[in-house]
Amino acid sequence: MNVIESVAGMRGWSREARASGERLILVPTMGFLHDGHRELLRIGKREGGRLVLSIFVNPAQFGPGEDYGAYPRDIVRDLKIAGEEGVDAVFVPKAEEMYAAGYETYVEVERLSKYLCGRFRPGHFRGVATVVLKLFNVVTPHGAVFGKKDYQQFIIIKRMVKDLDLAIDIIGAETVREKDGRAMSSRNSYLSPEERSAASVIPRALDEAEAQFLAGERVGGVITDKMKKIIEKEPLAVVEYIEVTDPDTLQGLSRITGSALVAIAVRVGKARLMDNRVLNG
Amino acid sequence: MNVIESVAGMRGWSREARASGERLILVPTMGFLHDGHRELLRIGKREGGRLVLSIFVNPAQFGPGEDYGAYPRDIVRDLKIAGEEGVDAVFVPKAEEMYAAGYETYVEVERLSKYLCGRFRPGHFRGVATVVLKLFNVVTPHGAVFGKKDYQQFIIIKRMVKDLDLAIDIIGAETVREKDGRAMSSRNSYLSPEERSAASVIPRALDEAEAQFLAGERVGGVITDKMKKIIEKEPLAVVEYIEVTDPDTLQGLSRITGSALVAIAVRVGKARLMDNRVLNG
Repeated sequence: MNVIESVAGMRGWSREARASGERLILVPTMGFLHDGHRELLRIGKREGGRLVLSIFVNPAQFGPGEDYGAYPRDIVRDLKIAGEEGVDAVFVPKAEEMYAAGYETYVEVERLSKYLCGRFRPGHFRGVATVVLKLFNVVTPHGAVFGKKDYQQFIIIKRMVKDLDLAIDIIGAETVREKDGRAMSSRNSYLSPEERSAASVIPRALDEAEAQFLAGERVGGVITDKMKKIIEKEPLAVVEYIEVTDPDTLQGLSRITGSALVAIAVRVGKARLMDNRVLNG
Repeated sequence: MNVIESVAGMRGWSREARASGERLILVPTMGFLHDGHRELLRIGKREGGRLVLSIFVNPAQFGPGEDYGAYPRDIVRDLKIAGEEGVDAVFVPKAEEMYAAGYETYVEVERLSKYLCGRFRPGHFRGVATVVLKLFNVVTPHGAVFGKKDYQQFIIIKRMVKDLDLAIDIIGAETVREKDGRAMSSRNSYLSPEERSAASVIPRALDEAEAQFLAGERVGGVITDKMKKIIEKEPLAVVEYIEVTDPDTLQGLSRITGSALVAIAVRVGKARLMDNRVLNG
């Protein structure tokens, strides 16, 4: 397994891999790998060819006062996991390698970035789109795997790839969950045992949304109100948003006519936790 | 010579060309080709490999009230010139092919886009950077040629390529001029004979700037004042801006210590004409 820190080194490795006719698959992450990331790597591996894992805590997607400095890091453990999952190359650039002095170019998927998390994290998806585009340009993959836990990120990247005419397949991976239903997340490491238990209210609220939908409820506000009531029973959990939206445009739905996305962001202690469920109509 | 209208067709052509190991050079233009464009094509040809000319009047770089609709077009003549210059493929997408319904992704080189023309054409360089990135992604060239008549565009593209880690050589071409010194421009076609004569005041003003510089003048304001006086003697010419800036950062220079860029934009009749000169210190 190659561990590559420079853009030039990664570019050279990719050029050779592509020249040999192999399909290149990228799994971009911020590291501190968990079973959700393992699933992304396994999906990438099944695509065949060579598998590249990038690990980069991207400063451009953190706002002032957010947890850039505190974001958990464990590169030794990450490399062990990468080896176990059959990764061919790990790209671990330093921040100065990705954003040299004088850096000033940003890409934005303008409409989709305004909804949901975008309302609470201005500039976040601009930072995400920019770093993903840079990683695509350095690694030049044929395909890339993204988890649907970050559903908005997933469709923003798909939109960017389509709009910018990138010849890259974007592959979505279903969310991997703990036994109590919580979505795996590196930020779960911020939680105390009590907070972990409190956070399990999130998948329970999503279960309720799905139950309502299956029972015929189609009014967005009724579904979100039921979810809010469930979350509010948990004193350690504070709702940031709960929304029922169109799964493609992310626009709020007062009435569901086909499928819908139920998206939720909740603060538990120091952690901001996200989850979602697609209701297939 | 292949004339290709679809993104898929262009991508396929480029993929084959690259697979055969040939170097691909792109010359992006808005068509209505003149001798300045011929020079770009000849420079591209000298790079070897295969030469792609793109012709696309890019709506994203025109503001409301600008000349998008009126911009001169003559595709038949352009294809004849392309053939004469040994172009291998001409990419002529329709606007709907480049910006399908729902398009919403834009790239911006934020600081460099604010100066000079950027002050008068908000959003212009965002549109330029976006379409050039798209053309790069479709054509996947090893190198691309840009004229230095549009000096700000040239350094914005160089910055974008560096910041976004694109493996593309950006080659600058010196401005080709009419006998009276005017920079070649498709927009010169807007000028009446009287206006053409009036527009020749622009290179004369730049000559004066250079003469001042060679005589030891280093105060930016003195040089721009002398230029303004020359332009003001020509009643058909209206100055939009005349500035002395750092050639790399485009920041205004009150005092020149090394090299400098003298940049000028002037309105003559319906035409907005730009020119510049680099003073090498």
